[in-house]
Parts: sequence; structure tokens; C-alpha cells
Amino acid sequence: MTNTRGSLFDPTFGSGDAAALVSDQAWVAAMLDVEAALSRAAAQHGLVDAAHAEIVSAVSTELGAPGGVDIAELGELSAAGGNPVIPLVEIIRRAVAPQGVPRTAVHPGATSQDIVDTALMLLTQRSLTAIRSSIGDAITAGAHLAQVHRDTPTAGRTLGQQALPTTFGAVVAGWVAGLTRADDALARAEDSLAVQFGGAAGTSAALFPHGPNVADALADELGLARQGVPWHTERTRMGEIAGALGVVAGAIAKPALDVTLLASTEVGEVEEAAPGGSSAMPHKRNPVAAITARAAVKRVPGLVATLLSSMEHEHQRAAGAWHAEWETLTDLLRLVGGGAHQVAVSITGLTVHVDAMARNLDITHGLLLAERVTTALSSQTDSAREIVTVACASGRPLDEDPSITEFLDPSVVRELLDPAQYLGHAGDIVDRVVADVHARSKGRS
Amino acid sequence: MTNTRGSLFDPTFGSGDAAALVSDQAWVAAMLDVEAALSRAAAQHGLVDAAHAEIVSAVSTELGAPGGVDIAELGELSAAGGNPVIPLVEIIRRAVAPQGVPRTAVHPGATSQDIVDTALMLLTQRSLTAIRSSIGDAITAGAHLAQVHRDTPTAGRTLGQQALPTTFGAVVAGWVAGLTRADDALARAEDSLAVQFGGAAGTSAALFPHGPNVADALADELGLARQGVPWHTERTRMGEIAGALGVVAGAIAKPALDVTLLASTEVGEVEEAAPGGSSAMPHKRNPVAAITARAAVKRVPGLVATLLSSMEHEHQRAAGAWHAEWETLTDLLRLVGGGAHQVAVSITGLTVHVDAMARNLDITHGLLLAERVTTALSSQTDSAREIVTVACASGRPLDEDPSITEFLDPSVVRELLDPAQYLGHAGDIVDRVVADVHARSKGRS
Amino acid sequence: MTNTRGSLFDPTFGSGDAAALVSDQAWVAAMLDVEAALSRAAAQHGLVDAAHAEIVSAVSTELGAPGGVDIAELGELSAAGGNPVIPLVEIIRRAVAPQGVPRTAVHPGATSQDIVDTALMLLTQRSLTAIRSSIGDAITAGAHLAQVHRDTPTAGRTLGQQALPTTFGAVVAGWVAGLTRADDALARAEDSLAVQFGGAAGTSAALFPHGPNVADALADELGLARQGVPWHTERTRMGEIAGALGVVAGAIAKPALDVTLLASTEVGEVEEAAPGGSSAMPHKRNPVAAITARAAVKRVPGLVATLLSSMEHEHQRAAGAWHAEWETLTDLLRLVGGGAHQVAVSITGLTVHVDAMARNLDITHGLLLAERVTTALSSQTDSAREIVTVACASGRPLDEDPSITEFLDPSVVRELLDPAQYLGHAGDIVDRVVADVHARSKGRS
Amino acid sequence: MTNTRGSLFDPTFGSGDAAALVSDQAWVAAMLDVEAALSRAAAQHGLVDAAHAEIVSAVSTELGAPGGVDIAELGELSAAGGNPVIPLVEIIRRAVAPQGVPRTAVHPGATSQDIVDTALMLLTQRSLTAIRSSIGDAITAGAHLAQVHRDTPTAGRTLGQQALPTTFGAVVAGWVAGLTRADDALARAEDSLAVQFGGAAGTSAALFPHGPNVADALADELGLARQGVPWHTERTRMGEIAGALGVVAGAIAKPALDVTLLASTEVGEVEEAAPGGSSAMPHKRNPVAAITARAAVKRVPGLVATLLSSMEHEHQRAAGAWHAEWETLTDLLRLVGGGAHQVAVSITGLTVHVDAMARNLDITHGLLLAERVTTALSSQTDSAREIVTVACASGRPLDEDPSITEFLDPSVVRELLDPAQYLGHAGDIVDRVVADVHARSKGRS
Repeated sequence: MTNTRGSLFDPTFGSGDAAALVSDQAWVAAMLDVEAALSRAAAQHGLVDAAHAEIVSAVSTELGAPGGVDIAELGELSAAGGNPVIPLVEIIRRAVAPQGVPRTAVHPGATSQDIVDTALMLLTQRSLTAIRSSIGDAITAGAHLAQVHRDTPTAGRTLGQQALPTTFGAVVAGWVAGLTRADDALARAEDSLAVQFGGAAGTSAALFPHGPNVADALADELGLARQGVPWHTERTRMGEIAGALGVVAGAIAKPALDVTLLASTEVGEVEEAAPGGSSAMPHKRNPVAAITARAAVKRVPGLVATLLSSMEHEHQRAAGAWHAEWETLTDLLRLVGGGAHQVAVSITGLTVHVDAMARNLDITHGLLLAERVTTALSSQTDSAREIVTVACASGRPLDEDPSITEFLDPSVVRELLDPAQYLGHAGDIVDRVVADVHARSKGRS
Repeated sequence: MTNTRGSLFDPTFGSGDAAALVSDQAWVAAMLDVEAALSRAAAQHGLVDAAHAEIVSAVSTELGAPGGVDIAELGELSAAGGNPVIPLVEIIRRAVAPQGVPRTAVHPGATSQDIVDTALMLLTQRSLTAIRSSIGDAITAGAHLAQVHRDTPTAGRTLGQQALPTTFGAVVAGWVAGLTRADDALARAEDSLAVQFGGAAGTSAALFPHGPNVADALADELGLARQGVPWHTERTRMGEIAGALGVVAGAIAKPALDVTLLASTEVGEVEEAAPGGSSAMPHKRNPVAAITARAAVKRVPGLVATLLSSMEHEHQRAAGAWHAEWETLTDLLRLVGGGAHQVAVSITGLTVHVDAMARNLDITHGLLLAERVTTALSSQTDSAREIVTVACASGRPLDEDPSITEFLDPSVVRELLDPAQYLGHAGDIVDRVVADVHARSKGRS
Repeated sequence: MTNTRGSLFDPTFGSGDAAALVSDQAWVAAMLDVEAALSRAAAQHGLVDAAHAEIVSAVSTELGAPGGVDIAELGELSAAGGNPVIPLVEIIRRAVAPQGVPRTAVHPGATSQDIVDTALMLLTQRSLTAIRSSIGDAITAGAHLAQVHRDTPTAGRTLGQQALPTTFGAVVAGWVAGLTRADDALARAEDSLAVQFGGAAGTSAALFPHGPNVADALADELGLARQGVPWHTERTRMGEIAGALGVVAGAIAKPALDVTLLASTEVGEVEEAAPGGSSAMPHKRNPVAAITARAAVKRVPGLVATLLSSMEHEHQRAAGAWHAEWETLTDLLRLVGGGAHQVAVSITGLTVHVDAMARNLDITHGLLLAERVTTALSSQTDSAREIVTVACASGRPLDEDPSITEFLDPSVVRELLDPAQYLGHAGDIVDRVVADVHARSKGRS
Repeated sequence: MTNTRGSLFDPTFGSGDAAALVSDQAWVAAMLDVEAALSRAAAQHGLVDAAHAEIVSAVSTELGAPGGVDIAELGELSAAGGNPVIPLVEIIRRAVAPQGVPRTAVHPGATSQDIVDTALMLLTQRSLTAIRSSIGDAITAGAHLAQVHRDTPTAGRTLGQQALPTTFGAVVAGWVAGLTRADDALARAEDSLAVQFGGAAGTSAALFPHGPNVADALADELGLARQGVPWHTERTRMGEIAGALGVVAGAIAKPALDVTLLASTEVGEVEEAAPGGSSAMPHKRNPVAAITARAAVKRVPGLVATLLSSMEHEHQRAAGAWHAEWETLTDLLRLVGGGAHQVAVSITGLTVHVDAMARNLDITHGLLLAERVTTALSSQTDSAREIVTVACASGRPLDEDPSITEFLDPSVVRELLDPAQYLGHAGDIVDRVVADVHARSKGRS
């Protein structure tokens, strides 16, 4: 019992609801849900007695509750055959036997992979709901923040250098745009969560001619998509889910990195609501939510690569590639869930230091408007770019540089150097993104 | 000139049309296409003289032809600023200057990333067309093969062991189902190929108030999707493309692995049309197309992970993560293109040894029908599974085992052991997949 | 409590001793070991009262036993600061306070990363011992198996096709050679397991001028290498460990894949001692140990990539890259441990079907000696290769092909076609590898 | 010819000498070197006429020069068999035939993989020399920089926040320590570069009883390590090389990231010698060398994962996993070479703004000495940490906070707040690292 994992680090990297939804307990419950639904689906087609199916369902529900199955013992028994379904079916059969349910009423026509794959789709479906809820929180908070700071000038930074002014609203709108597209990717992935059912070689020979009908009934019982044909070794669905989770991880990483950088001592433009402290350094204000989100999603690309590498399934059941998916997808869901939760926490509680933004905009003494001065100067001289480049390098304020004031009045230059007057379409960006968020939430309700 | 790559290995790993569509030459041509389209788009909104835009277009077309630009020199010049757009814009400006075109008519309101990102989307669009064409060939050949062998019994193999009979048609239908879903993923990825346009900090300040209109016009000129808002550091599109290519790679790997295994000396069930020889071993018949396809797509998951890791773009332009995308996506498109082409070659030319399939079905002397015998025996005795397990272990044919014939007549057992009578829904699987392929091709025409 | 992981899948993928050595409990115990050793090390240099250090040690030992610390509660408390050390230090301080130990006697001069990194090195050291023990078992079993089958002819297979004869001993010697080199890689990695100690910014300012001395004393207390200088954001050690584990995973994957393929129904040359069964198919003899080993190590490359990606630590403590290492290295150790254990099980219990090897050598009716016939024929005619190629394609036995018997007597050809006479240096390979194994085990004792 | 890659992006991401050493031309030359050395090695053991071997050598040298072989044609011919050796051997045989050299004098006893693998080891050896030279440049420059700034106070930053003072010398010493360890990893990898020689099934049957002797002679001719036994499908060497390159990439990424962050507008503590400009923004000073280095090495972990995944080679020659190594290792060497070169450029030309470091140290008005004040206060009161935490949050300078000055005289507090007085062992770190660099360069000369 003490050899487990999850208690120590999940509250940090697997926060939110997703981690619990892919725990050992959740796995066992999901496999039991599938077995129960399968007995009922078979009963619909007369292959199992309806009363027996009801008993299987009731017993599976009991077994799926915490303590219902000794998971450590089940784990030990699973090793012999390389998957947990063989002993789990035995547990169910023994549990229903006293009520007169024959062995054949449990696991009818199924192979272990039918149960594991379908259970994993259920786990994915349940986790995605939690993940999307957190992403939704982040989007809502971000859209609000973007609107509040629609017109707050801040330095646009390219390659680490201040480049041109933008607004903090536009910066946040970029986060929201990414999260929104990521959520769309998850919505598409949800659609590909299908039941798996085909029996030992995928032909449903044992249930002929009822195979496809039982498969569809099973899907309907569980609220999963119908499969079309079994996909035991056709793993595009796994790849699609992995890809979508990879996109979400990237969409989380972006604001998390920005918050970390903007919260740095020298920039100091944002602060989290509950920054972390340090035992040794009482002054530290670490943006812990953003840092934790980054830590969680940084592990996603490697896991996605594992799932994609594992799409190469030979023949009618892969000897290893299939098994490699189980914990990998579990980890992906847990970590993307944790990252989504933390980034929502970070954005929701973000304090914005408008004064610091203004101060930072002033660091270069107007140099980040150099593009604008160059453009204005271009109408006066062909050497505009050269003049401004030399002026920038001199360290002198541009409105005091004679090579510039020869062409433009100092007061004109000063006006050109006002960041608030050179924000371009920053406001439009906010408006578009926020409108899209509102349209989406309307579409949903 | 001799320091380049691509000549030696592309005919092997980057065969088909995609590799040439992402070559150095293709990159330069695409960037020039974007600059030309941008001048025209700006002209539509009165920001550039229409005649000048025409000259920029014409000159860009000339420069984009082989030999138009000294690519090695351009490469050397690119290093100083870390991207090829800065020197390329200078090349265009110098080339149009003699015709009286001012510098401002080239690259109006753009930043280097606008050009590189949009060019990369064009390269992706062009390569995806080639890739989808190869995938389409593989699907067509596979659908035909599946139909031909709809009812050809073959051993279903799970975890490397013969498990139950299936049909070769159902096996191939599984390949086709995967390739079909993969093609759908590419179709969705194509939809996300959008223009990039926002200027230095993404605000299009230099073109205010025409920024979004120019961006949309640019998209329309190039046949790319409109961007909504600029996505300089919102990289979900890159993640989506990477994910889709990862799914395709997995869908290619599956049949390529199956062909390799089925073509092995001991199985001998399939043979490629043009197997590779060996200098030392005159008898070798290596399934080179399948092997090459595997080799190409095996490299995809790592590249996908790189693109996903590189989604973490800080501020308004990433210092490294952006640059890491260029060659990575290039390689992805080339390798998926090569894999798609080779798998199409492999499937199209596949010879099926039906006799070998029959011979292999007989290796276990009926044991792979053990499930069926067990089921039949179950109606006679509660110990069916134990009896058959012991019988299987004995090595004796099941129809001669007294513990079985005690319950079932030997002739009944023999009939139960006929693989052709226990194919379940294998034929239905073929029918469903083939019908789907036909529906798709109809939908397209 | 029920939200944990490890019970269900560890007996399958994390078998052997490594998994328990990186559990939550093991993590807590290791961190406590480090804190205890640090108090003692500081006491050696007069910075902590020796009696107090003894109390800290004794209390830490108690807290490190199962139940000593409520790990779930510790996990919850850890989230606020993003690491478990802050609350753990508080727990220790409270636990020793009743015995009059001041707060300063616990965690003297340390930063959280000092404790986490050093604890992770301890966990790695402990796990590597377990992993190397399993690898040693696999090497011993493999060396024995190679010797037993030093001269057992079997088909050498290239690109899936039978190519030339070799011996099964030489095949297994190749496995052993890889495992031996992998073990060497682990031995080198063990040498790089160093203590981490530098305080908040790596300067050990709080302990000046005793910093380096305390760091060295801490290393000696824990049996880790001295650090030279702190490596808070110099992560080559992590990369080296990751790389070594990646090499081990590859060395495990090779025999696991070979066993899976050689155990396939059509090849049938080996069988595991405890093959897995199937609920539905009583005849199945799945090589579960090899399959499970493959499944475990297939997940390693992605995790290695994550650790390597996470080497990019900014400034004096990374905001995310550091945290991403913890569970990733934990998983790597667990999975490599599981893979090592399973491959040892697989090789140790391998039954070799010499008859099947002989039967398979006969499948091509001598074609896999075509190289040898060609060589012999070359001394008679310049067209040797062409003649043999045509003969191979004809399907006729080579000793009956007139174009060959024109030059070589049929009895000579038949002799040339005897695989046992064309094994080259296969025996030498076994001898070299086995001698190396013996030399190593002598060197160790 | 125009379909190649490398001209456009190599000067940016593959700068330095490594890229040219793994070009198509370099590949062809290396394979020819191996064939020539093999003929000579075989001649040493009387298997080839010495005069013939000399001709093969001379002709191979000619063919290996630029233009000697039509690489595009060779590439096309390679596709049929899936590797370039089959047609290349034919080219050599035809080229030497006019001088009376028989076919058997070329490629004696070899299989294609012998040539490709050995050639790849040669390419690796040559590239590693170039890479280590660049790493050596970076180490030398870094050691000098660390000494110059041994005592220059700068802010130590943890999790993005200023934490405690350190020195810039200590920061750079950390870079150097990583690069030094990375170089050691490369030195170890160099030792594992061994010849590959075993013929079609690894038994050297065609050369019996001379196989091992020819293999050793081949190694000696080429300056590679002897192989012990053939390693056609025992790929630990590839994993070791990949792991070492991964470590180097991480060691490069660290200083590259630090330079990028320290050069940011708000921090402004360092500047590269040749910062990149921007067409639109004349004031930009982008640290292009560091950015380019980051971009190059960011792609390494994914490629390492590919090589590790490809270690799973079945039987005696892998159908895909082997082929996947060729371009992957090529890319790894090129990118690590480019990253090493750029990081050397970055560090060598770094301008350090000591004034900015001093200014940044003052941003928190002493808060980053809070740890020190707390320690001093601890001798006066048990509430030291609480008092300082409250004081820090108040925004008031610590030497003006009455809750502190109640215990410590303001002048004492001010002294405690002097960063230059709280640098701990920063200087020792520089001294240790520099001494190590000197010891290494002495050990080498």
C-alpha cells in the first residue's frame, strides 16, 4: 500500500479533477462499467438473460466503489497475463455466481482488449470534461482580463527585446485565442472516443451474427461513439487524442511562460494572487501556479511521442505497443488536467501592475517607437533608416538628436514617441477574441 | 554546393512529391510568393501603387525560379539576423528598384515572421496535397485488395500467436480504415493553414487602420485561411499540423509493419511487387517499400515532440522556439510524404499467397479454433474450458481427444475446427470500410 | 487514498524492486535521509550541536518509516510552494522541538532544491542497484544460454527474411553483449550521482566559509559523489542518467523483441517458462515477460526526451524545468527496472525448440546458403551470381539445377547447403561474449 | 539539384564545421573510405591481392572527391534496395575493372550494413572533432569571462525572482562546468566509435577463419575502435552517442537561455558582440548567436528519442529501425555542431554591463538580502522570520522598519544589505571551475 504514487505530487502537478479520474480506482471502476454495460448490451440482443445482466450491473457498481476490489491483489494477478481484465472477469463471475448468474453472462464475446480500450475511452471522456472545465475557466478569466486591459499600453517584446508597444489586453487575447483553439481540439477529440468491441481476432465470431449490434448497443449504453469497425490495431484514435492533448499543453505553456517572465523582478508587470514563498527568503513572490503549469505540460510532448510511436500495432493485437498506451495516456490526461487547472488559477488571480508597464515602456526612452519615427522621417529623407539607426545607437533621446530634428520638430518627435498613440489594432484583437469567446459560450448554452 | 543534403537519401526516405515541395528552392519560392502577394494585397487597399505591386509580383516570380536567387549566398546572409527574410527583402527591393519601385512597396507593414510563417503554411499546403494524393493511392489499392480477399481465411494473430481465423480482407480493411481516418486528420489540418500578418508586435500599427483588411486580402491572394488575429506566439496551428502528421505516420506504420511480418520467410503470406535484393544473398526478397515506409515514419514522433515542445513562445516573438519549427516541419512533411508514397507502392503491388495463408492456418492443427470448441462444449459440460486447455497442451488433435469426443462427435469437432466456418463479421468489416471509401470518393467528386 | 496509482499496473510494468524504491514513501524517506545527514554534516563543522543532529537523525528515521508522515497531507501542503521540502522541514522542526532542538538545527544553510536534488540522487542510486541486479540476472542467464546453444544452427534473418545460418548461441550472445554494455553505462551513471548543496543562490552564503566542507561532508554521509560545485541549473548529470537509462531500455528491447518474434506461432523456436493464457483462447502461449518488458521500455525514449528538454534551466533555479524532472526520472527508473526484471525472467526461463530451428532452416530448401554456393561457383564461372539468382527464383532445389550442377557435383552442392557447415565465427562470438561476462564478474568479486 | 536542403538554413542552424562533415558528399566519401580500407584489410590477410587493394584505395579516393560520384544518381539507385551500398559497390567495381581488379577485391566478405555503420562511425568521429573544438572555444571563453567577473556582484535569480546576490563569474562558471562535463561525455562517446564488420548474418562466414582479424585490421586502418563482436542489431553504441549529444545540447541550452534573458531590455546585463538587427526596428539588439544556439539544440531531444526508439532491432538486421538512424544521427551531429559553434560565438563576444548588474541589484531596495537580515535578527528574537516577512511586504526599506531597528541598528542593517558582502563561495566556484579547465587543457597537451 505504501508503494504507490500520486499522493505526494498530484496536488502539485495533477491538481484539478483529472488526476482522480485516471487513478487506479478510476481504472477499475471504468473496466467494471464496461463489463456491466456489455452484459446489458448482450441482453438487449438476447445473448444474456436480462435479469442476469441486471445482477452483473449491480454487482459491478458495488465492486467499482472504493474497497470493492482489492486493487493491489488485482494488480498482482494481472501480471501473469499482462492485463487486468483476465482476473477482473474472474472476480465478477465469482461475485455474481451466488445469485445464479452463469459465467457466460459476464464478458460475453469479448476479449481483454475490448474492455481495456473501452475503459480507457471512458476515462478519457471523463478526464476531458474536467480538463475542458479548467480550460473554460482560464478562457473566461482571460477574456475578462483582456477586456479590462484592452487599452493598457505595454511593451511588445520580440526575441527578448522591447520592440513596439502593444496592449496588455492584446497579449492576454493571444493567450485566450490559443486556449480557445485548444478547447476546439479537445472537442474534436471527444468525438473520436469510440467503443471497442470485436472479440479475440476482431471478427466477433463468438457473437455472430450479433457482433456489430452488440458493439453499437455497448457504445450507446456508455455514451461513447459507435466504432464502425473494431480498431484493436488501428490506433488513429489514440494518435488523435494524443495530438489534441499536445495542442492543449502548448496553449497552456504560452501564458504560463509569459506570466513567469512578466512576474520576474526586473519586469514586475504581473503578480499571482497566491505567490509561493521560500523558507529562506521572506521576500520571494514566486508565480507558483504558472511555474507548476509549465512543469506539468513540459512533460507532455515526450508522452505524445510515446503514444505516436506506439501506434505501430502488429497483426490483430500488439505485443507491447498496446500495453504502452495505458499509463501513458493516463499520465497525459493527469498532467494536462493539472496544467489546465494551474493556468486557470494563475490567470484568474492575476494582479496587473499598470505602473510597471508604463515604467518599462519608458526604459528605452522612446526607442521602441523607432519604427514609427523612421516611417515619419521617410517622407522627408531617403536616409531615414540610417539616421534613426545611428540615433538609436547614440543613446541620446530621439527628440534631441539633431539629425532627426533637422527634419522633424522635437515636439512632433515627442508625440511620435508616445506609445499610447501607436497601438495599431491591439484593441481590435481583443474585441475579436472576446467576441469569439462570447459566441462560443452562447453556442454552448 | 557539395555540402548539401537530400540527393543521397531523399529517393529512399523522401520519395514521392513532398520532398521537392519543401526543398531550399521551394522555401525561397514560397517566401517570394508571400512578398508578392503582400504587395498586391497592400495595393488593394491603396497602400502600395498597383503598378508597383505588379512589378514586385513579376520580379518575385523570376527570383523564385531555380537560379533566380543564389540560395547559398542568401543562406550565408540570413545567419546575421537569424532569418532569411531580411536579406531576401533586400534582394527584392534591389531587383525592383531599376523599374522605379520604391523600397516601401516591398514588405509593407510586415515583420520577418509574417513572411516565414505564411511561407511555411504555403509549403505545408503544397506538401499536404502531395501526401494526401499518396494516401489516396494507398486507400484505393487497399480497398481493392480488401474486396478481393474479403473471404480469404487467414490466421488472426494476437501477441504474435495465432488466435482465431479472420480474413485477409478484414486485415487490409483495418489498414484502410486507419489511412482513411488519417486522411481526415490531414483534411482538418489543411483547414487550419492560415496566413500570418501582424507586423513587428502583432498590432499592424504601421498599416493602421488597414491591418486586418490587408491580412485578409493576403490570405485570399494565397488561398490560405484568414487568421482572425495574428498568431506569432499562439502556436496551436503548428501543434495541430504536427498532431495530424503524427496520426498519418502511425496509420502508415501499421500496414508497413504487417507487410514486413507477413512477408517474412516463415510466414510468407505476402510479397511486394519489387522486393529488394542483396549483393551477397541472391535469394533475398526484402519488402523494401514497406521497410522504407517504416524507416521514414519511425522518425515522426520525435519530430512531433519537437514541434509541440516548441509551442512555448514567449512574449511577441520567441527567441529560438520559433526558429526550431522551420526545418522540423520541413522534415515532418518530407518523411510523412515519403512514408505515404512507399506504403502506397507496397500495398498497390502486393502479391497475396493464399496457399501460404491456408498452410499457416493448419500449423496448430486446429488449435486456433479452440475458442469455438470450448463454446460448443460449454453446452455439454461446465468443465469445457479446462478440458480444452488440457487437450491443447497435449499436442493431440482436438477431434481425437477422448475428453472432448466424450461430449462431441469427432466429425462435429472437425467441422468446428474449419477456419472458413468461423470468420464471424470479417466480411462485414470489409464491406463497411469499402463502402466508406466509396462514399468519400463520391463526396469529393 | 484511493486516488493513487501504482497498485494496478506496477506488478506488470514496474515489477522487480525499482518501483518501490521510487514510490511516494521512498521519496519522503529519501528527503528525510538528506535532512538528517545535513544536520550531521553541519554538526561536523560546528554549525549545529552534535546532540541536536543526533535527534534530527533519529526523528527523521522515524518519520521516514511508513506512516511516519501523512503523505497525502504533505502533498497538499507542498502545492502552495511548488515543492515538498518547505512543509517537510516544518514537520521535522516541529517533531524535534519538544526535545529542545532549535529550528536552525534543521535544514541549515539549505535551499529546497538542495534537498530534492540530493534525495533524487539517492533514489536513483537505490533504484540503479535494483536495476543492475536484474540486468545481471539477464546477463548470467543469457551467457549460460549462449554457451548451451553455442553450436545450435538457426536461421539468421535480415529484414525479416532468412539470410544465412548462424547459431542460436550467437543470437543470444548479441543480447548479452548489449546488456553488458548497458550495465557499463549504468555503472558510469552511478559515478555521476553527486550531492547537491549550495543554498538559495548556490553560493552557500549562509554557511560561509563552511559551505564546500559541509557539502562534502553531506556527500560522504550519504555515500554520494562530491559535487565539485553546486549544479542547481547545470543539469548534465540529469542528462547523463537519462541517456544511460535510454541505452539500457534499448538493450532490453532487443532480446524482448527477438523473443516475441521467435515465439510466434509460425517460427516457434522459443517459449517462455510461464507464457500467458487467454480467457477466450485456451491454446494461447503468449511470451508475457518479453511483451511486458517491451511495453515498459517503449515508454523510455519519450521520457528521456523530456529530461533532456528540461536541461534548459534559467538563472539560478528553473521555473518549471526543474520540477518536470521529478516524476519523469521516477518513471524512468520504475520502467527500466520493470523492463530489466521482465527480460531477466524471459531469458532465464526460455525453452529453446532446437527442432523448430532445424525445421525453419529447411524452409527455403537451402536457399539461405545461396551465398555459399555462389562463392563456390565463382571459382568456376564469372556468371555465378546470375546463375544462382535464376536458380533461386526457379523454386527448384539448387542441387538439382542443371545450370549449377554443370559446374558443381550435386553432392558438393548438397554439402554446401548444409547450414551446420557454414556458421563462420558464430562460436567465436559466443566465446568472446561469455569470456567478457566472466571477466566482469571476476573483476567485481 | 535544386531539390536539396542545407544551403538555406545550415549557415544559421548548422554553422561551424560539423554540417559539411555530414553532408551527402561526406557520406559518400566515408563509405568509399570504408570500402578502400576493407580491401586493404583483406589484403593484409591474403584475401585480396595487395596491388588490387591499392587500386581500390586510389580509385575510392578519386570517387570520394566532389564530383567523383553523381550523388543524385546514386541516390536514385539506392532506393531499390533501400541502401546506397549496393549501387556504390557496383560503381567501385566498374571503376577498378579496367585496371584488372576482380569484383571480389571490392567489398570482400561484407554486407551493406558493415559499410553504412562503419561509415556513420567515421562521420561521427569527424563531426565530434569539430563539435569538441567549438565546445573547447566556449569553455576557454567562458573560463576567461568567469575569471574577469569573479567578484562582480549580480542578482541570483530563482524562479524568475531575485533571490540573493551571487557573482557573474559564478554564473558563467556554471556554464563552463556544464560544457566541461558535456565535453567529457563526448570524449567517452568517441571511445565507443567502433568498426562494424560481420557479413550478411554477422558470422563472417564468407571470410572464415579470417573474419575477426579482418575486422580488427579494418578498425586499425580507419582509426576506429575494434568491435569485439559485430553489433548489427546490438545498438547500445548508437544510444550512447545519442545520449552524449543530448547532454551536450543541454549544456549549450543553459548559457544560451541565460544570455537571451540577461540581454533582455529590462535586465540589460549582457550584450552579444554582433547582435542582430531588424528591418523594421532600428533599435533592436537581438542576441542572435544565443537565439540560434537555442533553436538548434531545442531540436535535439526529439532526435535522441528517435535514435533510442530505433535501438529495437529485430533478428540480424532491422527492417526500418536501422535505416531510421542514418539521417537522424546526421541531423543530431549537424545541430549540436551548430549549437556549439553559436554558443561559443555568443560567449566569446559577450559584453558585460556591470552597471546594469549593480542597478538591478538595487531594484528590491535590499530585499534580496532578506535572508541575511533574518539570520542576523534570529540571534535577537524568535520572531525574526515573521518580522522580516512583514517588513518585506510593507515596501519600506528594511533599515527604516522599526520592527527591525528595534533589534538591529539601522547602520548594521544597511551593512547587512550590501550585496558585495554576501557573496558566499561565489569566488570559490569560479576558482574551482577554472582550475579544472586548466587541468584539463594541461592533461591534453
